[in-house]
Amino acid sequence: MEKRTADLWVTEYQTGNMRLGLRLKEILCNKQTPYQHLLVVDTFEYGKVMLLDGAIQITEKDEFTYHEMMAHVLMCSHPNPQRVLVVGGGDGGTVREVVKHPSLEKVFLVDIDEEVINASRKYFPSVSSELDNEKVEIKPMDAIKFIKKMRDYFDVVIVDSTDPVDFAAGLFKSDFYMDVFNALRDNGMMIAQTESPFAEADIVKGAYDEMSKVFPIVKLCWGAMPTYPTGMWTYTVGSKGPDPSKPLRDVPVETRYYSRSIHEASFVLPRFVRELLSEEEGK
Amino acid sequence: MEKRTADLWVTEYQTGNMRLGLRLKEILCNKQTPYQHLLVVDTFEYGKVMLLDGAIQITEKDEFTYHEMMAHVLMCSHPNPQRVLVVGGGDGGTVREVVKHPSLEKVFLVDIDEEVINASRKYFPSVSSELDNEKVEIKPMDAIKFIKKMRDYFDVVIVDSTDPVDFAAGLFKSDFYMDVFNALRDNGMMIAQTESPFAEADIVKGAYDEMSKVFPIVKLCWGAMPTYPTGMWTYTVGSKGPDPSKPLRDVPVETRYYSRSIHEASFVLPRFVRELLSEEEGK
Repeated sequence: MEKRTADLWVTEYQTGNMRLGLRLKEILCNKQTPYQHLLVVDTFEYGKVMLLDGAIQITEKDEFTYHEMMAHVLMCSHPNPQRVLVVGGGDGGTVREVVKHPSLEKVFLVDIDEEVINASRKYFPSVSSELDNEKVEIKPMDAIKFIKKMRDYFDVVIVDSTDPVDFAAGLFKSDFYMDVFNALRDNGMMIAQTESPFAEADIVKGAYDEMSKVFPIVKLCWGAMPTYPTGMWTYTVGSKGPDPSKPLRDVPVETRYYSRSIHEASFVLPRFVRELLSEEEGK
Repeated sequence: MEKRTADLWVTEYQTGNMRLGLRLKEILCNKQTPYQHLLVVDTFEYGKVMLLDGAIQITEKDEFTYHEMMAHVLMCSHPNPQRVLVVGGGDGGTVREVVKHPSLEKVFLVDIDEEVINASRKYFPSVSSELDNEKVEIKPMDAIKFIKKMRDYFDVVIVDSTDPVDFAAGLFKSDFYMDVFNALRDNGMMIAQTESPFAEADIVKGAYDEMSKVFPIVKLCWGAMPTYPTGMWTYTVGSKGPDPSKPLRDVPVETRYYSRSIHEASFVLPRFVRELLSEEEGK
């Protein structure tokens, strides 16, 4: 008789009509936090994977593409990024990339859910590796409340949020972008993850339009991100002045996805994305 | 009692450890051809989808990104593309893009499986729309045999194959690339779909190395392709002379993904892909 093994899978419902399955080695953490369901699994294809409310947040194998884009696009195009805020991003991957820049004086990590931070420290040491860096200050609280109290303080704000549902929905609205605007110094810039133009065209368009109500310069860039729905991911930048599509320097430490030329290429949009952004509202 | 509906899904095993599921409206065609299993389904997320031996080939929603890259990168960088060969590609999507170029005199579509062509005509009219164009000659036969008889004939060869297993495996080997080289005229160029650097790094590297044994110039470009594994897809070009990364003209008919600037950006490789290609064999 042939040897049989159990067939374990985790399934992410990326939309109601599309799902990604990954074969499991093991479930490492499976719990409800005060804010969301937190699952950490070990998989054959992507190594360890963290899911929040059923949505993949990071995998060991591909997190570098997302975190490098989130951090370096602005850290390389702002004239002198000293003070940085990361909204969400409790896994620490974006912070790990931000601290590679010598101009940095201080980065706040404001994630509403401390248990995400703790899980990343425990299960993703290569992602959370810089959380104890002396330039990092962790604030486990609602970023929407945190940012309202800050004025003319930050150079760069990075919105490394979950999908725009539940408590994260407010992070895709112009009220929040206005608070970010006010928290930024002159030349300040923000970047937000803004989903896939194939799976969630409305969110891409909505974030772009909401940010355009507040910032004089708004630009979209994109990159590969295999475990996010459709693998084509957008990042939307609002700027008070600097052109985010023009890198001013290289990352001084080695990167695996990002480079100065990838930075420039990421702002070249396929025609269907350009058309999505230029569509008249209410059309 | 709540109304219940059936819950139908088609599942593609992208690797042994990763699968993509799409919710079904209906199965339209489900048969074994002399060469492979052919499935056409209608889905909620991607419209109609064709699978061969369980692998997604085209979907109505995202086929444009793949077919535009396959056709226009060479049709726009070859000095004067008059005679074109499409290997595989029985759905007709690549041919539809190739005939947009006025320099074209003749395009041969050589697909081993005539039933793929017939299914595309029946279920994918927007993809097969140019199969009856007077410049198109369809040859339902093994392209490996076809190309051995051709000398100094083609300007552009496009290898729009299935994954390198079974009868398509030979399409990723230097013997075949040598036959393509011989079938090309001066300034001739070939392009092949060469899988994902995340899911199939060995295939990306292997095709690049095999092509490098034959062509003096070999370059890789990439683009988004949501329903192919990881969504990041590579295309490898072998050239007898022209630089494939330099577009010489625009596509005279509207495109949705490709543009001259996307062409240039697609040759900018993330560092991990560059490193993959430069790795010493046997290291």
